[in-house]
Amino acid sequence: MLQLYFSPMACSLASRIALMEAGLEARYRQVHLWTKKCIEDDADFCSISPKGAVPVLIMEDGERLTENAAVLQYIADLKPESGLAPPPGDIDRYRLQEWLSFTGTEIHKGFLFPTFWYKDDASLAKPRARITQTLSVPSAHLADREFLVGQRFTIADAHLAWALLLLRPAGVDVAQWPSLSAYLERMQARPAVKEAIAIEAALRKTVTP
Amino acid sequence: MLQLYFSPMACSLASRIALMEAGLEARYRQVHLWTKKCIEDDADFCSISPKGAVPVLIMEDGERLTENAAVLQYIADLKPESGLAPPPGDIDRYRLQEWLSFTGTEIHKGFLFPTFWYKDDASLAKPRARITQTLSVPSAHLADREFLVGQRFTIADAHLAWALLLLRPAGVDVAQWPSLSAYLERMQARPAVKEAIAIEAALRKTVTP
Repeated sequence: MLQLYFSPMACSLASRIALMEAGLEARYRQVHLWTKKCIEDDADFCSISPKGAVPVLIMEDGERLTENAAVLQYIADLKPESGLAPPPGDIDRYRLQEWLSFTGTEIHKGFLFPTFWYKDDASLAKPRARITQTLSVPSAHLADREFLVGQRFTIADAHLAWALLLLRPAGVDVAQWPSLSAYLERMQARPAVKEAIAIEAALRKTVTP
Repeated sequence: MLQLYFSPMACSLASRIALMEAGLEARYRQVHLWTKKCIEDDADFCSISPKGAVPVLIMEDGERLTENAAVLQYIADLKPESGLAPPPGDIDRYRLQEWLSFTGTEIHKGFLFPTFWYKDDASLAKPRARITQTLSVPSAHLADREFLVGQRFTIADAHLAWALLLLRPAGVDVAQWPSLSAYLERMQARPAVKEAIAIEAALRKTVTP
């Protein structure tokens, strides 16, 4: 069975959403990101992945895959009929990769990561000054579109919805961008997304930093 | 014809390397990243791409594609016989995406970007403290491998070679990781890589900040 190492409300939530949208069964293994311990058995998470970061997916062949952009595409391709990723060769597959990269580099690594890991004002001044310009890109794109890519929900939406969800705890009010806040509401109304968030929000309360 | 908007020695160098390794003709359009102007005709680069970032690839259908992880895969797939990317469906395709994501998020966005754009010591203290741990990952992986993925040069190597090349101007001596410095030397010895770097290093000298 697939196994997903995750931390509640971390970017591995996008992988959980993809698994649940695809209707794929998986075993979820919670990690404490500060102590780098697996909650279940106190095992050293860095022995699972030296990166010490989630998501880590144990694939069907037992090998480990890291990095959301890769993990999400692997999950989507396990269930092509889910439409979670356009098929390889389709121009929209590159659009999907474009959004996965944008969310991963500009929003996550450029803003959310320093906000939650570095924390001090000195580290945050520049990323914070930049986030408005960053968010103007998906805001304009979603002004007249229901989804990021094509006419249906994809893993790019799972990824961006997670990132937008973290904006509020990061001190940014998504209501500044009406198209983004309407999009986030639509995404959160999807049963699989709603269930994934509820599970992790409940687990989040049990984590002490 | 393909067109690549680039800035000398920026991450678009990886896209140029991919094009040259694939033997694909392209028109290269230089952008000044600080002024957001196209060098050739002083046009507003943000009207080409509101992100104001390189690379931007004008694809065969005339549409624009951004983000290295997407641009590089598009280029590789135009010439499958080049082996620049494992075919879709191959497990190594996900390994390729894993490395593209790691280089783009951890090395580029997590370290090189703040170094060259934010510049001040306050913004740089945490990213600088983190880069040693980050580089230990590809260092360990390349200790007994010639290339990042499989047995041949791929776009993941084009991407990482570019990132490693920028470490020195970013104040990090790659010689601390013998496997990385040997890898970078091997990559730079490839004719297409050598030529791509020579072209952009020469152009770099003509750019005033």
